[in-house]
Amino acid sequence: MPKKHKSSVVSPESGSARFRQVTILGPGLLGGSVGMAIRKRKLARRVVIWGRRLEAAREAVKKGAADAVAGSPDEAVAGSDLVILCTPVEIMPDLARQFRARLARGAIVTDVGSTKYEVVKVLSQILERKAAFVGAHPMAGSEKDGLKAARANLFDGAVCILTPLPQTAMKAVDRVRVFWERLGCRLRTATPSEHDEWVASISHLPHLTAAALVNSVARGTPRAFDVAGNGFRDTTRVAAGPAEMWTGIILSNREEIRRNLQRLIDELETLNRHITNHAAADLLACLRAAREQRIALKRLKG
Amino acid sequence: MPKKHKSSVVSPESGSARFRQVTILGPGLLGGSVGMAIRKRKLARRVVIWGRRLEAAREAVKKGAADAVAGSPDEAVAGSDLVILCTPVEIMPDLARQFRARLARGAIVTDVGSTKYEVVKVLSQILERKAAFVGAHPMAGSEKDGLKAARANLFDGAVCILTPLPQTAMKAVDRVRVFWERLGCRLRTATPSEHDEWVASISHLPHLTAAALVNSVARGTPRAFDVAGNGFRDTTRVAAGPAEMWTGIILSNREEIRRNLQRLIDELETLNRHITNHAAADLLACLRAAREQRIALKRLKG
Repeated sequence: MPKKHKSSVVSPESGSARFRQVTILGPGLLGGSVGMAIRKRKLARRVVIWGRRLEAAREAVKKGAADAVAGSPDEAVAGSDLVILCTPVEIMPDLARQFRARLARGAIVTDVGSTKYEVVKVLSQILERKAAFVGAHPMAGSEKDGLKAARANLFDGAVCILTPLPQTAMKAVDRVRVFWERLGCRLRTATPSEHDEWVASISHLPHLTAAALVNSVARGTPRAFDVAGNGFRDTTRVAAGPAEMWTGIILSNREEIRRNLQRLIDELETLNRHITNHAAADLLACLRAAREQRIALKRLKG
Repeated sequence: MPKKHKSSVVSPESGSARFRQVTILGPGLLGGSVGMAIRKRKLARRVVIWGRRLEAAREAVKKGAADAVAGSPDEAVAGSDLVILCTPVEIMPDLARQFRARLARGAIVTDVGSTKYEVVKVLSQILERKAAFVGAHPMAGSEKDGLKAARANLFDGAVCILTPLPQTAMKAVDRVRVFWERLGCRLRTATPSEHDEWVASISHLPHLTAAALVNSVARGTPRAFDVAGNGFRDTTRVAAGPAEMWTGIILSNREEIRRNLQRLIDELETLNRHITNHAAADLLACLRAAREQRIALKRLKG
């Protein structure tokens, strides 16, 4: 049978969504959820996890996010055909330098980092001639933090943006694309700069806005918190997210965020002017434009 | 039996949460929901509804929000011991002038308006020596608009702020308080000015912020909408609310909103400065303060 003949030439995993061994570095909300999703969907024979705190990695195994704990990043990647960086973006370069030499031949490295320009540039350089790096950003964060909140269906319906470079091997890009699709993501592709521009607008700016909103009410009218309803709660929900992580994300995307903040401040000043001038028609036009756009966004998902 | 004797002296409704007849003016989301809740909880023997569009009032009856439709505001209030204004705030004074002469002796008038200073001042004057006016603001708006979205449990757990004046009859205040409690609200009392200060912060400012956020992204990075996840959706949800209604609300609370907008712009500029200066510790302190405050808010409800 020609089919059988073929499968003896091609390795059982290549071209499929399955991996021999996957390594997860960083057992937090995303790392834990990736591991749980891989094991639930049987996308790898074995999942190895490493965390700076050994205890957290052990917890991840208990939670079903991995089969085994590794004592160090380089031990963790040995023998894996897929390595997923799930740590804060700022420590990814150091990790890559540590494990580089131990990467298996043909291994693919991907990540879940929230900014891409710096990370993709630096990691592609570090891993050059050793492994293909395919930047990825599954947009399934949560204001909940840590492994406790991890769940196998975290990625269901989430957008995942891939940011390959022109020189990235197409085969590696395809395997990473199929991998995130199997985890439930809706895939998009962008250049690292485009990615950072987009997430500045729809993730980093909203976070800063929510934080500024909470802080401005705390400063001016703290008693108002007592009567805050669903509107205020929705608008500020993301501000409950982990402050250290967000500080790192925001500082790694400074230029785009500054542009976005300035645009938002301009819009708020325009509204303030219309209100000061009692310009009902102008104010209405602004609120209408926002309303139509927001309703269109609703349709986009449903 | 002393009990029977008593009930022949005291009217069956006084001191209780029940009314003979309730009039609802304005068959929208709030008016419809109030009617449905009253009928479900049997808080009145009869509910009469009036709307500028006769068709909407008829629809409200079909939906179970009222027993009968009235052809005019003054016809609607005749014989009612409770009148609830559920129209946009800006037309409430005209309505009150129209129905004033037909109010039953001892009738109580309340409303659901989103701002209070102007409305309470003007309506108390118009209704003086005719009926007690007890301003109320059940904070159960929704980005959904109109009668279609009305439901009997809209007020479950919602905060309702009463804004009586020093001269308002305590008995009327108590009846209105008990009424909104029976509808499921958690009651708070404030002066009209305090109310407007609070809602500027936790309702009007978030609305303007959400609208500005949507408009600034539409202006700068419209392609980013395609990858917007739950964070952006939550932060901007309220911007989908009815633009005409919000224009009216915002223009009726200009001074407080301007103060709030300026405070928010100051906070955003502070964040922008920390980001520009790469001041990680300062940025972290801001995000941490917001996070702690937002988490405290979560506890407040649960």
